[in-house]
Amino acid sequence: MAAIDTLAWQERKLVIIDQTLLPGTLAHIALASAEAVWEAIKKLRIRGAPAIGVCAAYGVVVEVLRQAPATTPLCKALTRETTAYLATSRPTAVNLFYALERMAAAAERVPDGAAAEAFILALEAEAQAIYDEDIAMCRAIGAHGAPLIQDGCGVLTHCNAGGLATSGYGTALAPMYMAQEQDRSFHVYADETRPLLQGARLTAWELHRAGIPVTLICDNMAAVVMREKKVQLVIVGADRIAANGDAANKIGTYGVALLAHAHGIPFYIAAPASTFDKATPSGSDIPIEERNAEEIACWETYRTAPEGIQFYNPAFDVTPASLISGFITDRGLLLPPYDAALPKALGWDA
Amino acid sequence: MAAIDTLAWQERKLVIIDQTLLPGTLAHIALASAEAVWEAIKKLRIRGAPAIGVCAAYGVVVEVLRQAPATTPLCKALTRETTAYLATSRPTAVNLFYALERMAAAAERVPDGAAAEAFILALEAEAQAIYDEDIAMCRAIGAHGAPLIQDGCGVLTHCNAGGLATSGYGTALAPMYMAQEQDRSFHVYADETRPLLQGARLTAWELHRAGIPVTLICDNMAAVVMREKKVQLVIVGADRIAANGDAANKIGTYGVALLAHAHGIPFYIAAPASTFDKATPSGSDIPIEERNAEEIACWETYRTAPEGIQFYNPAFDVTPASLISGFITDRGLLLPPYDAALPKALGWDA
Repeated sequence: MAAIDTLAWQERKLVIIDQTLLPGTLAHIALASAEAVWEAIKKLRIRGAPAIGVCAAYGVVVEVLRQAPATTPLCKALTRETTAYLATSRPTAVNLFYALERMAAAAERVPDGAAAEAFILALEAEAQAIYDEDIAMCRAIGAHGAPLIQDGCGVLTHCNAGGLATSGYGTALAPMYMAQEQDRSFHVYADETRPLLQGARLTAWELHRAGIPVTLICDNMAAVVMREKKVQLVIVGADRIAANGDAANKIGTYGVALLAHAHGIPFYIAAPASTFDKATPSGSDIPIEERNAEEIACWETYRTAPEGIQFYNPAFDVTPASLISGFITDRGLLLPPYDAALPKALGWDA
Repeated sequence: MAAIDTLAWQERKLVIIDQTLLPGTLAHIALASAEAVWEAIKKLRIRGAPAIGVCAAYGVVVEVLRQAPATTPLCKALTRETTAYLATSRPTAVNLFYALERMAAAAERVPDGAAAEAFILALEAEAQAIYDEDIAMCRAIGAHGAPLIQDGCGVLTHCNAGGLATSGYGTALAPMYMAQEQDRSFHVYADETRPLLQGARLTAWELHRAGIPVTLICDNMAAVVMREKKVQLVIVGADRIAANGDAANKIGTYGVALLAHAHGIPFYIAAPASTFDKATPSGSDIPIEERNAEEIACWETYRTAPEGIQFYNPAFDVTPASLISGFITDRGLLLPPYDAALPKALGWDA
């Protein structure tokens, strides 16, 4: 398939697809300040853990270019300020912090006596490296996950962990794109993923664009699709994976994992090494973003729920490691027991 | 609480709340022909298995009044035609067929020599009896179910099986209204229930109106609410219950039952005796209505899914009896084993 230009760095301008307008409108917007980047991440114009990381990395370059401090020490101060600011845009995705830490570290490595232009080149190179690694990571995940998708099978996915969530093929969708390249035919069932319908708006859009057959269902139909043996495996993404293998992903993932378990269907999480967080011991240590009640109460300006009631709108949930059949990573397919597999594959023992 | 006038028979006019306009607008509409009744049921202006049954029963009276055949044999022929027609409005709810069969039987009992007005009075009396029994049924379900709702507990429900789904207190919500009358405080978590949002639009509306605290969640948040121990039991309604205890209800119910089972939370179905169908051996014998793809693909006229993809939109699913902790019925709380409990309580042995 032709890659999706989810995010591009062109002539020192950061251009993204405004995903809030999909599937009706495919519009590209330029983000010309850290504030614009923060807003785009917060408002989900760009989303998906890997894409957020790359976007934030370039966001640092954008802000340094915009303010153009005269000396490298001033550039470093602005970089510190900007990385701290962009880290507040969303609390759950670990890739965001990972990318910003890399940018901060790259900044500190520049000698104080260097010219400002040299500083910017160093930042740009680091952001480009994160971007390139993201694309390579997607292909590696695809290669490791594709063998799980047998000819004629059905695959269920939740939310969007596709090309729109990364710089490349995506995480959860990468094995599907790779299986398609290998000429296998299969069918994807996409949960629409309330409240923001990333499954309907984004996953169905990009799979259909790539020519992969996709059936859209409401989240509450996943159990029936499993019972009717329409799907033989589940692949979803993750925003953060704790050291014990508990994985935070879009709200509803935990329920899908329980339903898959009840039907004896393998449940895989596709994520790069950067999503595994050694510093987070277990899922209970992952902060869960709670988003605005209006996301549930209204459709655009049309109110679908009465006034005066309460709302609960967690954006993510945690799937315990015990429900996860395996992690499809850029370092290979990691299988239980995770207390052995994760440290070995991720180099945590070193 | 003040009862909701979901459906009323006033001066020989059938007046219903148009539930498609809730929660924004509380509008009453008169249904002046069988065709209008059929359309109102099909388009979900009135919905909920018991309310559909009562509405269809009065729909027969409405049509006989409208066409006003001169003789009782002509009235009988029209009644047969009208009951057959109204039975095609929705395929899953057994109460619809039950109510129409009662109307047909009442019609046949009228002597052929009776005056047309006497025929109409007989039909009207039968419809009124179904209506009155519905109200009594709701209170009986409430009485049998209320003890399950302990002070301070959380209850999860799916779709709307409340006063808007019946002539009275509802089925699933009746125990809640009764527990409120008994001065117990508790909190309800309402699944919004995609695609038509009956939980958001109707359940949240009527519980809030009654002063019962309610928190609205997306369907895919039910698992997290259970894991966080916010709910201690689940109560939902049913559209048809097979002889073995398998129960058809709004799409998503089966998934909720599996999630409740996984968390050790009791899962109850509240339904009157008329919802149990001795003639349907098991859940696999219940026809499942599949509704229009547009319900998933669009929000009003705004398209949220891309063109060209496939959709799957079953309106109901079947929860196997093994996942049901008990049936809260107007004949008492029926507990497993159902092969003994159901025939005894429902008089199937006789």
